[in-house]
Amino acid sequence: MKSILVIHGPNLNLLGKRETGIYGKISIGQINTLLKKQAKIKKVRVDIVQSNHEGEIVDLIGEAKRKYACIIINPAAYTHTSVAIRDALSAVRVPVIEVHLSNIYAREQFRHTSLIAPVAKGQISGFGAMSYLLALDAAAEIIKK
Amino acid sequence: MKSILVIHGPNLNLLGKRETGIYGKISIGQINTLLKKQAKIKKVRVDIVQSNHEGEIVDLIGEAKRKYACIIINPAAYTHTSVAIRDALSAVRVPVIEVHLSNIYAREQFRHTSLIAPVAKGQISGFGAMSYLLALDAAAEIIKK
Amino acid sequence: MKSILVIHGPNLNLLGKRETGIYGKISIGQINTLLKKQAKIKKVRVDIVQSNHEGEIVDLIGEAKRKYACIIINPAAYTHTSVAIRDALSAVRVPVIEVHLSNIYAREQFRHTSLIAPVAKGQISGFGAMSYLLALDAAAEIIKK
Amino acid sequence: MKSILVIHGPNLNLLGKRETGIYGKISIGQINTLLKKQAKIKKVRVDIVQSNHEGEIVDLIGEAKRKYACIIINPAAYTHTSVAIRDALSAVRVPVIEVHLSNIYAREQFRHTSLIAPVAKGQISGFGAMSYLLALDAAAEIIKK
Amino acid sequence: MKSILVIHGPNLNLLGKRETGIYGKISIGQINTLLKKQAKIKKVRVDIVQSNHEGEIVDLIGEAKRKYACIIINPAAYTHTSVAIRDALSAVRVPVIEVHLSNIYAREQFRHTSLIAPVAKGQISGFGAMSYLLALDAAAEIIKK
Amino acid sequence: MKSILVIHGPNLNLLGKRETGIYGKISIGQINTLLKKQAKIKKVRVDIVQSNHEGEIVDLIGEAKRKYACIIINPAAYTHTSVAIRDALSAVRVPVIEVHLSNIYAREQFRHTSLIAPVAKGQISGFGAMSYLLALDAAAEIIKK
Amino acid sequence: MKSILVIHGPNLNLLGKRETGIYGKISIGQINTLLKKQAKIKKVRVDIVQSNHEGEIVDLIGEAKRKYACIIINPAAYTHTSVAIRDALSAVRVPVIEVHLSNIYAREQFRHTSLIAPVAKGQISGFGAMSYLLALDAAAEIIKK
Amino acid sequence: MKSILVIHGPNLNLLGKRETGIYGKISIGQINTLLKKQAKIKKVRVDIVQSNHEGEIVDLIGEAKRKYACIIINPAAYTHTSVAIRDALSAVRVPVIEVHLSNIYAREQFRHTSLIAPVAKGQISGFGAMSYLLALDAAAEIIKK
Amino acid sequence: MKSILVIHGPNLNLLGKRETGIYGKISIGQINTLLKKQAKIKKVRVDIVQSNHEGEIVDLIGEAKRKYACIIINPAAYTHTSVAIRDALSAVRVPVIEVHLSNIYAREQFRHTSLIAPVAKGQISGFGAMSYLLALDAAAEIIKK
Amino acid sequence: MKSILVIHGPNLNLLGKRETGIYGKISIGQINTLLKKQAKIKKVRVDIVQSNHEGEIVDLIGEAKRKYACIIINPAAYTHTSVAIRDALSAVRVPVIEVHLSNIYAREQFRHTSLIAPVAKGQISGFGAMSYLLALDAAAEIIKK
Amino acid sequence: MKSILVIHGPNLNLLGKRETGIYGKISIGQINTLLKKQAKIKKVRVDIVQSNHEGEIVDLIGEAKRKYACIIINPAAYTHTSVAIRDALSAVRVPVIEVHLSNIYAREQFRHTSLIAPVAKGQISGFGAMSYLLALDAAAEIIKK
Amino acid sequence: MKSILVIHGPNLNLLGKRETGIYGKISIGQINTLLKKQAKIKKVRVDIVQSNHEGEIVDLIGEAKRKYACIIINPAAYTHTSVAIRDALSAVRVPVIEVHLSNIYAREQFRHTSLIAPVAKGQISGFGAMSYLLALDAAAEIIKK
Repeated sequence: MKSILVIHGPNLNLLGKRETGIYGKISIGQINTLLKKQAKIKKVRVDIVQSNHEGEIVDLIGEAKRKYACIIINPAAYTHTSVAIRDALSAVRVPVIEVHLSNIYAREQFRHTSLIAPVAKGQISGFGAMSYLLALDAAAEIIKK
Repeated sequence: MKSILVIHGPNLNLLGKRETGIYGKISIGQINTLLKKQAKIKKVRVDIVQSNHEGEIVDLIGEAKRKYACIIINPAAYTHTSVAIRDALSAVRVPVIEVHLSNIYAREQFRHTSLIAPVAKGQISGFGAMSYLLALDAAAEIIKK
Repeated sequence: MKSILVIHGPNLNLLGKRETGIYGKISIGQINTLLKKQAKIKKVRVDIVQSNHEGEIVDLIGEAKRKYACIIINPAAYTHTSVAIRDALSAVRVPVIEVHLSNIYAREQFRHTSLIAPVAKGQISGFGAMSYLLALDAAAEIIKK
Repeated sequence: MKSILVIHGPNLNLLGKRETGIYGKISIGQINTLLKKQAKIKKVRVDIVQSNHEGEIVDLIGEAKRKYACIIINPAAYTHTSVAIRDALSAVRVPVIEVHLSNIYAREQFRHTSLIAPVAKGQISGFGAMSYLLALDAAAEIIKK
Repeated sequence: MKSILVIHGPNLNLLGKRETGIYGKISIGQINTLLKKQAKIKKVRVDIVQSNHEGEIVDLIGEAKRKYACIIINPAAYTHTSVAIRDALSAVRVPVIEVHLSNIYAREQFRHTSLIAPVAKGQISGFGAMSYLLALDAAAEIIKK
Repeated sequence: MKSILVIHGPNLNLLGKRETGIYGKISIGQINTLLKKQAKIKKVRVDIVQSNHEGEIVDLIGEAKRKYACIIINPAAYTHTSVAIRDALSAVRVPVIEVHLSNIYAREQFRHTSLIAPVAKGQISGFGAMSYLLALDAAAEIIKK
Repeated sequence: MKSILVIHGPNLNLLGKRETGIYGKISIGQINTLLKKQAKIKKVRVDIVQSNHEGEIVDLIGEAKRKYACIIINPAAYTHTSVAIRDALSAVRVPVIEVHLSNIYAREQFRHTSLIAPVAKGQISGFGAMSYLLALDAAAEIIKK
Repeated sequence: MKSILVIHGPNLNLLGKRETGIYGKISIGQINTLLKKQAKIKKVRVDIVQSNHEGEIVDLIGEAKRKYACIIINPAAYTHTSVAIRDALSAVRVPVIEVHLSNIYAREQFRHTSLIAPVAKGQISGFGAMSYLLALDAAAEIIKK
Repeated sequence: MKSILVIHGPNLNLLGKRETGIYGKISIGQINTLLKKQAKIKKVRVDIVQSNHEGEIVDLIGEAKRKYACIIINPAAYTHTSVAIRDALSAVRVPVIEVHLSNIYAREQFRHTSLIAPVAKGQISGFGAMSYLLALDAAAEIIKK
Repeated sequence: MKSILVIHGPNLNLLGKRETGIYGKISIGQINTLLKKQAKIKKVRVDIVQSNHEGEIVDLIGEAKRKYACIIINPAAYTHTSVAIRDALSAVRVPVIEVHLSNIYAREQFRHTSLIAPVAKGQISGFGAMSYLLALDAAAEIIKK
Repeated sequence: MKSILVIHGPNLNLLGKRETGIYGKISIGQINTLLKKQAKIKKVRVDIVQSNHEGEIVDLIGEAKRKYACIIINPAAYTHTSVAIRDALSAVRVPVIEVHLSNIYAREQFRHTSLIAPVAKGQISGFGAMSYLLALDAAAEIIKK
Repeated sequence: MKSILVIHGPNLNLLGKRETGIYGKISIGQINTLLKKQAKIKKVRVDIVQSNHEGEIVDLIGEAKRKYACIIINPAAYTHTSVAIRDALSAVRVPVIEVHLSNIYAREQFRHTSLIAPVAKGQISGFGAMSYLLALDAAAEIIKK
């Protein structure tokens, strides 16, 4: 049974508590529960981590190659500033799906550019928690091939 | 039973015949078949059109309000140039899902900016034909609420 | 009796139905009625068309030279993207008045630049339906000279 | 009977004497006469001032709130450089109509951006002295409501 | 005998009637006659179309692959705005020659950038009607190889 | 006893009357009273002026050298447009504190750049009337040294 | 008694040892002593941390909501690069005061833009250690309300 | 005997007192004495004014046409910000010589662009007080023709 | 019999030896032979020079006026950097044809801008050696008139 | 015997495993062995660390002043994003040598700008593992002086 | 008796023959005669050279230090492109006066930036041949000190 | 025994005489002596030239292919302006090492961009004369392979 790594980037630990107008009222725990349920249905294994530390995320990705067939990442704020995460993702050669809760293209100008997107397989943004579930479905499909 | 309108933008009639390195070998007919099959599973009705004409697409969207609960659009080249399609989508007040076969953020600079994205609910790009199917799943989910 | 051509650009057929916060509640039919009434007062003839198609608008302008002494155009979305309409207007050598319902300079950045303005005689924007009536008065005045 | 304040910005005292190719041969005195005549027809009162001093224009606008129902301003050179006049206009909460004799969008690049437009109700440019008369008609209409 | 498709873009139907200072006094009919004469000399067949509609031109190019060995296109205003025509040309994999009557690099800034040029084999601009004839000679030569 | 000059820039005479959402409900008179009270506590003398005229403010600063040990200035709109005030402040060699009622970095893009800041000792912005009082405390401290 | 969190960003541990021409000779320990003294006077409690790690600062802020009534932050180098800290500050909904020892607007171009400022209540820069003390006074005032 | 108007712009009244490293130690009075002496030698009459007020300078230029055969202006800070002075100079149709004490191209970036230069006959910068004297010689020569 | 000057710019002496993927395998000697053959057919005389020195090319053009009826130039690298060659071409008032072997618009960004094009009659690029022959045909035609 | 600190930035732990087309097949362990061997020859001591954490690298540099006579750093992805590392390097006043395995100027546009370079003594890039050895030689030479 | 070197840059050998609308009808020979006459009056020696070659001008300047007390240079086209001439001028430490016949700020955008100006003592532009004579007077004055 | 070509660009003949604060006191003759000494140690032959002429440097590189196994070039001012030297280097297919005495990234903005770097193997900058010696060591190493 193949594994998928899900990475929640900075401040996602505050989900459901902060700016619910933008991000919705669902908490990160609830999203993780939904992801695990959906993983069972799709018959894949899923490991989930959250970190506010760019370096930790780089560490995680560097070690991912050996263990995971696909990475789903919501890089949050690091989407727009982290060349280090981009380089890590580009190095591991595992298919990457970039996920965003909100529609980043309908927000501030500086959020319209993703340093991650050019090294990802694809991007899903704007569907709230459903963004993650769609990504999981896509990941399961990609692994099958 | 609620209806979804799928709009294929310019040059998508050539799909599977042109630049298969970027867009894959699947034809537009095959994508439509997959969409209809998936629509049955999700219990939604789906209408599909393709047009190379910006004005026609604007006409279509203008009339969509009365008939459709959701629009899935792959604006293709018009993604980057059509304020008219953007204004039409923004006028109809029906949820819009923007879809791309290829990862537009990994291509030429001028393809990185979407005039459509700021008025869409969400965007799915880079998964080939699967981009459409994920959009259909999302649309079905949105309609339910 | 001299004639004036009034061209309503893309999505103006939706007027009064869409985004009434920006464009007001008046419909295109009602604007046309006001225009015809005012034309009678000013003793000019007025022909009115609406199109969502850039090419159709270019066709119309190309044929306008023979028939019209003045063109009033609300290019809507094409204001910001159509070099073709600009070239057509610049070719016919008939005085052109650019009209906008809303104040385009108080909206999104990309709406602040008009490709049409440099080839127009003048521009009137921000007065809702009254923008058209002021343009008609100006056109009537210009024709007299 | 409601009052309208008309402000002529810098160098408009030279009108009819300078660069008649761009601004026409009419003098400021003649424009003022036309404005007063038209004001009688429209049954509004009109006060007219000209100043080359940014600070004076700011003073005038600051005091306008108590006395005027509408401001018509041709900010001339200050259109492109005066945040102070913009802030004053935005502070008084009286409807503002921006007027230009020439089509500023057909002139030098630095004249294409108006700091005033985003805080105005609307803008009329390119019709010579008629720009002012159209503005007066619009003002009279706005006051009625 | 191999065929060449010649596409005249928007407003070229007005040729010889409009702005003769820029485009010369020759009409589109006269250019077509010259092209057919030269085609006979070069022993190639030539089909010629003119359209003001971006979508129509995209349609035409999409169908060109089966019938033509080379496309000569004067995209006129669409040179600077149409990603759709660019994508169509890039999809058909037939050699493309971009033609302009005037020297676009000696005109307004926005005419200096061609969206078409990067997918064309070559570009000929500034020679008036002769631009087309040089393109035909080049096309005939390319077909021979 | 050392003196401090406080300069209120353009439109600040309207304080408390205009845009109270941005600037608060306190009037300029009330701010001046608070400043004088605090000056007594800090044992410094304070002179206060308000002007809408760039030239007057330049005059004032030019004469300040002889009389004042510190200048507190809220340049308001001139923050973003006046090289003349900058040059005057840079010429007098008296420490300058730049003050803003609102957080200029949370407003329109053109308000994010201050021509004054590079020649000031420091900047305090966003605290409403308290911005001035903090500046007075800082000025008193600077004078002591 | 209400608490204030003071965060010193990267490299501030080197204060007084490095580039004393720009930052002064005072050490971080001395600033902390001054802050605590002033806190007593103002009758607020103050907690102080220093970190070179963006992730740690994000963690700290995420947890701040429960414990602090106000945050004073000198984001130092992260002022210009950290969207993650901005998002954290914007999520906690506690008033934030941005502090800088030096006048960042009189230094290199890239230091003129603060990613933090748009989500802060206000900003104080250029007064050396006094910047912190003024911020504490402001914080104490804000808490009172 | 023909007359020349010399205009000293903002802050030049402080000359010799401020920033002597950039502007030299000579006072405006001394420059005026030198100018009058040189005017006698060249047999021209010279009137000299200094003003810190943009509006006053605009007034002066507007009245200059009747009285002066040439204008020498050191616009100082207004060089970079005043469209009003530019428009006034361009309106009077008297030859204009732009003068700067310092080499503005060796100073801050924003001083490299002159709004005045495009409407002047010529520009002399960087020679200190001698810049004025060279301008007077040039003016005398121009008047002769 | 009229003469045409053909100028090969820098590095074209290496043709056929370097980067044959971009420039083809033909040598400069072979191009010259083709040009002379074609000149005979068209009954014009052709002089050909190659230089890597900007100054030499400027010298050549300066002297060309007396001897040549047309200049064909492949400015190569100087296309993008030489104002001196542009000024020389603009000074001689002989029609100029700009030629490029490769399609410069399909290469690096900095090659998309030609300083030469605005002063040329026309431009032919992308046809390899054939670019020169088409230019010769055009030159012969221009000379005839 | 003087000491040199060598810092390997983010993702360099993956060296030899990832993107060998760009970075070569040598591992970080092998580079370290080469560095130690060369250090012996040059009679200097060398300490080597690798970290993916910006904050850790800032910590390291902050402590370096006491222990090292020179720092060799390959900032990798942080080259383009870390003001914090720049500030740390600029604070320690130890000579810094910036090293890159690949030629960063021949890669993506965003890799052409180094935030580190302006505070480094010098930069060596493009020579693979040899970049480090050249840097060590340079460091040894600098220490001698 | 001190010597002055006058350098005429590229294409100035064509003076009086080319574009007389911009540069006047005077030839370079006539300017040189005027310069020598004026040199006698001012009691300085003047050497004059003209070159179209950037490298030659750099050579000349490099050797100038030993022989000349001042350099007057009209860099013509190289004004906007030559860092090499700038570096040479900056190296010789002899006062440099930059001269232009035309007002470069009233011409094409790319002529508004001078690479030479920041290393010159001063600049004189727009007075035709008189620009050189004013520069000679200035040079004579500078040498005296 | 393999040969290396060392090219010193413009103004380097003045080394040790000019701006010693930036470039050091060593002369070009002394650098050449050091290079020859080091060449003997490394057992390579070295030819050294200096030229101020872009065209000469292009000529030299064009001929280099036959004779040299590596080129070391300090393009000096031409680093930032010469596409011709770039094209020549890119044509010869010999490994190129770019060398700079000073750290170009710590100087004026326009010196931060190298047109040469993208076609070089690597770049060494900031080490004074040692930059050349490190380049020679690298060249010797590259030749060995």
